[in-house]
Amino acid sequence: MPATYDVLAIGNAIFDILVQTDESFLRAQSMTKGSMQLIDEARAKAIYAAMGPATEMSGGSAANTIVGVANFGARAVYVGKVKNDQIGTMYTHDIRAASVTFTTPAAGDGPATGCCYILVTPDGERTMNTYLGAAQNLSPADIDSAQVAASSITYLEGYLWDPKDAKDAFLKAAKIAHEAGRKVALTMSDAFCVDRYRAEFIELMRSKTVDIVFANTAELHSLYETSDFDGALKQLRQDVGLGVVTRSEKGCIAATASEVVEVPAFPVDKVVDTTGAGDLFAAGFLYGLVRDLGLAKAGKLGALAAAEVIQHVGARPLASLKQLASEHGLSA
Amino acid sequence: MPATYDVLAIGNAIFDILVQTDESFLRAQSMTKGSMQLIDEARAKAIYAAMGPATEMSGGSAANTIVGVANFGARAVYVGKVKNDQIGTMYTHDIRAASVTFTTPAAGDGPATGCCYILVTPDGERTMNTYLGAAQNLSPADIDSAQVAASSITYLEGYLWDPKDAKDAFLKAAKIAHEAGRKVALTMSDAFCVDRYRAEFIELMRSKTVDIVFANTAELHSLYETSDFDGALKQLRQDVGLGVVTRSEKGCIAATASEVVEVPAFPVDKVVDTTGAGDLFAAGFLYGLVRDLGLAKAGKLGALAAAEVIQHVGARPLASLKQLASEHGLSA
Repeated sequence: MPATYDVLAIGNAIFDILVQTDESFLRAQSMTKGSMQLIDEARAKAIYAAMGPATEMSGGSAANTIVGVANFGARAVYVGKVKNDQIGTMYTHDIRAASVTFTTPAAGDGPATGCCYILVTPDGERTMNTYLGAAQNLSPADIDSAQVAASSITYLEGYLWDPKDAKDAFLKAAKIAHEAGRKVALTMSDAFCVDRYRAEFIELMRSKTVDIVFANTAELHSLYETSDFDGALKQLRQDVGLGVVTRSEKGCIAATASEVVEVPAFPVDKVVDTTGAGDLFAAGFLYGLVRDLGLAKAGKLGALAAAEVIQHVGARPLASLKQLASEHGLSA
Repeated sequence: MPATYDVLAIGNAIFDILVQTDESFLRAQSMTKGSMQLIDEARAKAIYAAMGPATEMSGGSAANTIVGVANFGARAVYVGKVKNDQIGTMYTHDIRAASVTFTTPAAGDGPATGCCYILVTPDGERTMNTYLGAAQNLSPADIDSAQVAASSITYLEGYLWDPKDAKDAFLKAAKIAHEAGRKVALTMSDAFCVDRYRAEFIELMRSKTVDIVFANTAELHSLYETSDFDGALKQLRQDVGLGVVTRSEKGCIAATASEVVEVPAFPVDKVVDTTGAGDLFAAGFLYGLVRDLGLAKAGKLGALAAAEVIQHVGARPLASLKQLASEHGLSA
C-alpha cells in the first residue's frame, strides 16, 4: 500500500526555555557542558530561579526533526505527550503550524507539559536540563496503528527509553511499521543516553527492531565503549542495516554492510547555537531517504539543514529548507 | 530623601508571541502594518490558529524599557498585572531575572496573562495584536506608594489608558511621585493610542501631571493632528517640561522650553526586528537622565540601546547595555 505519510516521529514533547549564560553558571550548577540531564520538578524550579531572562520555543529532539522533515516538503506526523496547559497549547500550535499532523491526546491531569532548560554558552554549545513532565505518560495507547502503518519511516528517539511506558510505545510502533513493510529509524539521542541503555540499543539493532541508526561520534564511541572510531563504525555496519554517523564540522558517514559514503559538513559563518544540529541533520537525511535520493544526497541534505539551524538561536529551522535544498541543487 | 530606585515603570504586562510572516498574511488578516491593535480572546484564538510556528518571550512596552534601565545598571522597579498561570510565571521570572524589582501581586482568577501576537515582516517591521488579559485588572491598589515615592522617575506607558482601572493607577502613581518631589514620564506608546486618547494626553502635559514625554514622529503628528513637524515640536515644548521625539534612522530630538538637542541614530548593519526600538530608546534616555548626564548623552544612550535591540529578534536586550555604554564612552 502506498504510504500516506513519509515520516512519523515519536519523541518526548518538550518545550524549550533558552538562556544565554557563561561557563561559570554551568560550574556553579554542577552541569556537564553539552549533555542532557534529566531533572525532577524541584531541580527544575531551582535551575529556573538561578538562571537569567529566557526565550521560549517548542523543542523535543524528534519533534525538531519532524518539523524539519515537513519544512523540506514531506508529509510528516508527530507522536508525543503534552498536557492541556498553556505550554501544551503553544506546543501543539507550533507543531501543527509547521504542517505536521499531530493527534496525540493531551493529558487532562498529571504533570505539566515537559520543559527543557537550555543553557547556551558563548561558544554556541548547549547544556540541557529536561523535566519530562507529561511526556512521562506517553504510552502504547498513544500509538495510532493506522498512522504508523501508513508512514514510510517511523523515527524514534533514544530518549524514549527514559519515561517508563514510552519504550513500550516505541516497540509497539516498530512492530506495526515492520508488519506494514515500513522502515524503523532510531537516533541515539546523546552519549549519556547511550550509556544508560547501551545493551538495549545494541539489542534493538541486532534483533532488527530498527533498520536505520543515527549517532554522533560520542554516541558511537559510547555505544561500543571504545575510542577507536574505525572499529566502532565497522561494528555498527554489522549491527544495523544503515548507520549514519555525524561528526560535527567533519561532516557525516552513511554506511551499510557493503557501502561507506562520506559527506562533508556545510560551511557556516558563525555557530550561534548548536541546539538541534543533530535533529535537523536527521531531518534532511530522512527526507533524502524517503525521496530515494541516495545516501550521498541524503547526507548533503542533512548537512544543509544542520548548517541552517546552528546559525541562529533555537532548534527549529527559520528558513525554508525546501528552498535551500533547491538552491543547492538537492531537490527531490 | 535620596531615591532608593532610579526608575519605576508601570505598564501592561504582556507576553510576546512572535512569528516571522509576510505581507500577504497581514492583508489576509486585515492588519494595519506597524500598528498595535487591541483584540479580544476570540480574535486572539483566530490569529493564533492562522499564524505559523512562534517563539515566545516576555514583552510589554514599559517592561521592556525597565529591563533596559536595569541592564544599564540602574535600580529598577516594575508594576504590571499577570495571572498566576504558566505564562505569568515565566513573565515574573524574566523580569526578576533581569534585576528588576517586581512585587505586583499576580491575579488568582480572571483572564489569563496577556499576550501580544507579533507579526514580523521581512523588512523587520512588527505588527502587534494585543490581548490584554490579566493586565485589564491593574488597579490603584497595585500601586505601592512607598516604592513610587522612593523612585527618581516614574515612567508610564500611554497604553495604560486602554484597561479601565489602569489610568487611575497611573494618576495615583503620578500624584505620589510629585508629592515626593520626583519626576513623571509618559511614553505616547503608538500613534493609534494617541488617536484614542489625544485630549487626555495633552491634558496630562498641560496640567503638569507628567514632566517628560516620549513620542515618535507619528505619535507627535497624531497628538497635534498636524503633518508639520516643526510646529508640533514647538507646541510640545510649550506643553511639557521635556519632550523627547524619536525619528527612526534620523535620530532623536530632546527639547525643553529653552533648549533643543539633536542626536543622530546609531548606525546598524541590518534591521532584523524593530520590536522594542522605542522602548529601549526610552531606557537609555531615562538612564542618562537619572545619572545626570545631560540631554545629548541621554539621547546617545537611547540611540545605543535602540540600535542593540533592532538587530535581533525580540524587544529586550541580549547584550550588556552597561558594557556597550562603556565601550562608547557613555558611562555614568
